[in-house]
Amino acid sequence: MEIFHVIEIHTKTHKGVFKDIQTMQTYDMELLTDLYELTMAAAYHKQKMSEPAVFSLFIRAYPPNRGYFINAGLEDVLSYLESFEFKQEDLDYLETTGLFSTDFLHYLGSLRFTGHVRAMSEGRLFFEDEPILEVTAPIIEAQIIESYVVNIMNLQVLLATKASRCVEAAQGRGLIDFSLRRTQGPISSLRVARSCYLAGMKGTSNVLAGKLYGIPVSGTMAHSFVTSFSDEMDAFRAFAHTFPSNTVLLIDTYDTIKGAKKAVQIAREMADQGQALKGVRLDSGDMAELSKKVREILDRGGFPDVSIFASGGFDEFKIRDVIQQGAKIDAFGVGTKMGVSADAPYSDMAYKLVKYGDRPVLKLSSGKMTLADEKQVFRTHEDGLMVKDTIALKDEKISGEPLLNLVMEEGKRSSEPEPLENIKNRCREELSKLDKSYKAIQNPATYPVELSRKLDLLQADMVNKVTQREIVES
Amino acid sequence: MEIFHVIEIHTKTHKGVFKDIQTMQTYDMELLTDLYELTMAAAYHKQKMSEPAVFSLFIRAYPPNRGYFINAGLEDVLSYLESFEFKQEDLDYLETTGLFSTDFLHYLGSLRFTGHVRAMSEGRLFFEDEPILEVTAPIIEAQIIESYVVNIMNLQVLLATKASRCVEAAQGRGLIDFSLRRTQGPISSLRVARSCYLAGMKGTSNVLAGKLYGIPVSGTMAHSFVTSFSDEMDAFRAFAHTFPSNTVLLIDTYDTIKGAKKAVQIAREMADQGQALKGVRLDSGDMAELSKKVREILDRGGFPDVSIFASGGFDEFKIRDVIQQGAKIDAFGVGTKMGVSADAPYSDMAYKLVKYGDRPVLKLSSGKMTLADEKQVFRTHEDGLMVKDTIALKDEKISGEPLLNLVMEEGKRSSEPEPLENIKNRCREELSKLDKSYKAIQNPATYPVELSRKLDLLQADMVNKVTQREIVES
Repeated sequence: MEIFHVIEIHTKTHKGVFKDIQTMQTYDMELLTDLYELTMAAAYHKQKMSEPAVFSLFIRAYPPNRGYFINAGLEDVLSYLESFEFKQEDLDYLETTGLFSTDFLHYLGSLRFTGHVRAMSEGRLFFEDEPILEVTAPIIEAQIIESYVVNIMNLQVLLATKASRCVEAAQGRGLIDFSLRRTQGPISSLRVARSCYLAGMKGTSNVLAGKLYGIPVSGTMAHSFVTSFSDEMDAFRAFAHTFPSNTVLLIDTYDTIKGAKKAVQIAREMADQGQALKGVRLDSGDMAELSKKVREILDRGGFPDVSIFASGGFDEFKIRDVIQQGAKIDAFGVGTKMGVSADAPYSDMAYKLVKYGDRPVLKLSSGKMTLADEKQVFRTHEDGLMVKDTIALKDEKISGEPLLNLVMEEGKRSSEPEPLENIKNRCREELSKLDKSYKAIQNPATYPVELSRKLDLLQADMVNKVTQREIVES
Repeated sequence: MEIFHVIEIHTKTHKGVFKDIQTMQTYDMELLTDLYELTMAAAYHKQKMSEPAVFSLFIRAYPPNRGYFINAGLEDVLSYLESFEFKQEDLDYLETTGLFSTDFLHYLGSLRFTGHVRAMSEGRLFFEDEPILEVTAPIIEAQIIESYVVNIMNLQVLLATKASRCVEAAQGRGLIDFSLRRTQGPISSLRVARSCYLAGMKGTSNVLAGKLYGIPVSGTMAHSFVTSFSDEMDAFRAFAHTFPSNTVLLIDTYDTIKGAKKAVQIAREMADQGQALKGVRLDSGDMAELSKKVREILDRGGFPDVSIFASGGFDEFKIRDVIQQGAKIDAFGVGTKMGVSADAPYSDMAYKLVKYGDRPVLKLSSGKMTLADEKQVFRTHEDGLMVKDTIALKDEKISGEPLLNLVMEEGKRSSEPEPLENIKNRCREELSKLDKSYKAIQNPATYPVELSRKLDLLQADMVNKVTQREIVES
């Protein structure tokens, strides 16, 4: 028996332009779920529980030093829901576990996602505790999608937020995603590249991401290129000869200062041919000191237009530090620490039942109490700046802009997928409306998020009722 | 224009038993590369440089608190190399970048991996600076695979090592991988589950991983199951009714102590039907305290055989702490922090050119100097324990067991893929031979790794020659 599980990545193109990746999922992604989603489904099925449930997706608390989040990943969720369907071989596997009845497996085979989704647009900012996506569907459908939805949203929110912090720290200098080799898995690298671009980076070294998402790709040479030649000058010349209009020389293989002097020599040889050296790259050592010295060598050599590009361990903190030290760096390659959001490699994102049938619900678990019922988030602006968000019940009328919009009805998208450039523009605009105190890369201020009076009263009432029912009287 | 990129996951089965996942890659994984791999290839092609190159894969330094690494991910590398081939649509995309000549793109279309690979087996332990894989191939072939090889190995080594630390801390208690919802991307979750199983965990909640790798799957209910019923007892009864021989009740939705008392009631009702409640799960609060109280409630209720399972923020440190506090926990679900290796979310894994043609090479970059030439690692045992490793030149005769074996010749695997159970057994055996001082989860001792005299001399000679050539005289 040979089994193939096929994952499809669709890239829809529009008017011949690469626009966005729409789906990246497998015919099997339905099985990419925690077993308990299926055991619960079996119990609901046996109990004939099929009333509509509402689940809410939110992040319980900021990771260290975060003052905001960027919404990203919605496209993947919608594509997943649209194509949700167990295959026969999935059911065959489930049968081997001995846990499920034939009747239930038959039911699973016919299961599709038929619910509604309300969500914030990708690229919007959001804050602690705010629902960013609410799913309304018969309880089995709404429950069974949990593991995938949390996984795919958690990664992209985390990475877009991390990338945005790097962009903020770079104060206008260009950033390129260099993280491919150290992201947690090859497919994740694609989501990292998209999240980075969405959050304001200029491009990526990741060629497949460039192809799939239409992101500019960037890169020239590694140390191995230099060491493969019998000397550094030969390596530099060979590269310039191959890419006369796109040469960035990596100058730290042996000694950065000597490398810079050789780069000046190459720049002269290129100038004699009517060509221009584009830049040099530093990848090790004291970046602030070295960049100043290299700048001086290039300038004195007559090449003030040759850019200095730096890579090697950069994240928002190291970018801030070298800029404060007066580094002469024009652009950064940010890799490992950004690509895994190293200082905060996970968020406390959760997808919780808030309503079943007509009944708002919550859990009281220590440190993890949830907010009951369907919700809306309203955002208030003053003088062009965001000043306050209010988490309210879904149908309340509150001043401010409602952020959750209907994006899927009865299992079908309400509109065409958005081009990535639109999302990138929205994100930039949103960030421009957030006061810099909330964007500080260390100890940011806490953006005001309130509960509406009605939600507050409902919550208090629910806590009382549940406490009375489950704790006092039980 | 609609483009499909198809990723294939093959599961080879042997004698009807799920054995191992063999490949997980896409027809496009060739493009999952840093752009510079391709620009360097173009320069090599233009220079007609095609001599054999040797690249070495190793980790430069231990992340915090690590005293060893577990090798994992080799199967993915071999599958990738065996099927390496650019598709026409990849070449079409590369053409749109304007960087590459038609001649070079034509060459890329014909490129296959024809080299040799020497590697340590999966499940073996290794240490700082030791090569775990060496690739010998014409330089373009050996270079172009870098990004994928580092990515896929880095993730799995990191995760297998993290999982092993959790197993170590649990002192024989069973562990289940619960990380799916917070791993960095959905596909990574599969590698996490495999790495965890390989490193000694008992199973996973990840159903697709269960199917693909033949790993036992585990899971029962979430809080949403409890809150969807009008009271907790109804929820418990409904679950027990559906899974009379496999019920673990989640008892912290409202109040853990009250939940434990309800569990005793359910256990009685089940016993009346000739059934047995399997366990209860705690997911919040003070785990040591609560588990002791819950144990007492279950015991006094007459159910000493009902197990206590705990989840919620566990990693090796929290597992150690609750055990030290006398927690009465029989098994743990380990999720988020383990699944992203939160205290060390990346390693400093590198893939470096060590030889080109007949010439050993190295780089001197500050803090990142490499060891020249093709190598072998020899391991010495005394009284059944590992006592020392020696990194030597490839053809040296040194006492001890050589760890790098030929696993691919001229682009073909030297042997069939190994069953995951074999790898798991090897890993357990290896760990049993490592003194516990190196396995301490905080401040482990440093396992002795030496350079052979010949390698040491070569290295000193190379550093002198390169310094003379590139720094003193340039």
